[in-house]
Amino acid sequence: MSQQTYDPLQPDGYNDTIKKPISEDGIAVVGIRYIIPARQGRAVRLKQGQIIAIHNPKGNQVCDFFAIINGSESEFLSMEHSRTALGRIYVKEGDILVTNLRRPLIEIIEDRSPGVHDILMACCDHARYQQLGATEYHDNCADNLRMSLMAINSQVKHIPSPFNIWMNIPVTKESGEISWDPPVSSAGDYIRLKVYEDCIVIMTACPQDMTSVNGVGVQPCELEFELEAL
Amino acid sequence: MSQQTYDPLQPDGYNDTIKKPISEDGIAVVGIRYIIPARQGRAVRLKQGQIIAIHNPKGNQVCDFFAIINGSESEFLSMEHSRTALGRIYVKEGDILVTNLRRPLIEIIEDRSPGVHDILMACCDHARYQQLGATEYHDNCADNLRMSLMAINSQVKHIPSPFNIWMNIPVTKESGEISWDPPVSSAGDYIRLKVYEDCIVIMTACPQDMTSVNGVGVQPCELEFELEAL
Repeated sequence: MSQQTYDPLQPDGYNDTIKKPISEDGIAVVGIRYIIPARQGRAVRLKQGQIIAIHNPKGNQVCDFFAIINGSESEFLSMEHSRTALGRIYVKEGDILVTNLRRPLIEIIEDRSPGVHDILMACCDHARYQQLGATEYHDNCADNLRMSLMAINSQVKHIPSPFNIWMNIPVTKESGEISWDPPVSSAGDYIRLKVYEDCIVIMTACPQDMTSVNGVGVQPCELEFELEAL
Repeated sequence: MSQQTYDPLQPDGYNDTIKKPISEDGIAVVGIRYIIPARQGRAVRLKQGQIIAIHNPKGNQVCDFFAIINGSESEFLSMEHSRTALGRIYVKEGDILVTNLRRPLIEIIEDRSPGVHDILMACCDHARYQQLGATEYHDNCADNLRMSLMAINSQVKHIPSPFNIWMNIPVTKESGEISWDPPVSSAGDYIRLKVYEDCIVIMTACPQDMTSVNGVGVQPCELEFELEAL
């Protein structure tokens, strides 16, 4: 098969994510509520020990969450290492998620939602939507991650598997079968995460509208986040 | 925390994997049975459509299996994308596993074992053994992957989550809890895999002896493989 060599840094297409970082350097003002518009992503820098609250204003929106160690392009939050650390394929309040070097990075310090999140599935990307039947470019979380980082002059050398906040992927126990179900979260739900290292956090308001992961009969919508004082 | 920036290409230590490739360029002779010694890894080049058989002579040995698209350092077999493609967290005969670009890469064409394999867990690495209590360097699958590739003048820019052949990680409870159980495979079991693209396949005879994944009361041991004629 002839194909150009894959460059993980290169988006397959663009949206406003690349033009609208929260600030030029990704630094946020504490206590300000920032909006992540529907179908877009945003990157924000956090200091060791800092807490970020992610809000789900409409309740049905999935947040693909990534975190990259400050100054590294290769150490990041890793779901496959977190599953080992947790001894579980689901997360709950109090859990600490780790990097691909097995260092603690994200603690779920408060979960004001039913606690249904996913740590199993890759983020959506160009290929996923083409396979689902899209014929044109479709916004996707892999590109949102790339663009969010480019917008603050940063990058990551691999697209990690995300912490899919509010994504409802039940696993049938015996057969291991998965389904893509609507979120069980409600308008106003939020989650508070503490970071254990200086890092860049990237949140993407998942643009998935070809399966039910962002609800049935509703459009993907915005998310919000806010940093707390150290 | 002060730490050197992580370089995914750099092993944390060495064993004979780096000195003993199957050949200088990783090309194998069809029909020859090659040994992957206990605790080591080997890389082999396959052509599109070719079949590799991996044998478990003692029955209790896990094979961490990776595959990288020929000529790419960033496109490889991906478990998180394969779970989406399969709609399952377990594999079975006939399944086709895909790359991080969601392209079909590995088909399980025959499984002469009870079919219990893992597609959830990261491979073992230096940090894993340190956390389990190792005080010295411990052979590990991440380093075996790196060294197997170095030994044939190749490399990969990220340590992918492997297809853990014969690794028995049951998801036991409603809560999604995982356990690290001994393999249920038997001496002489084998699996045959067909590749859909020119690629490098890396197999590591997992050196895990601090959990039960390679059996209880037995030492990690060798694996064997053989290529079939195209």
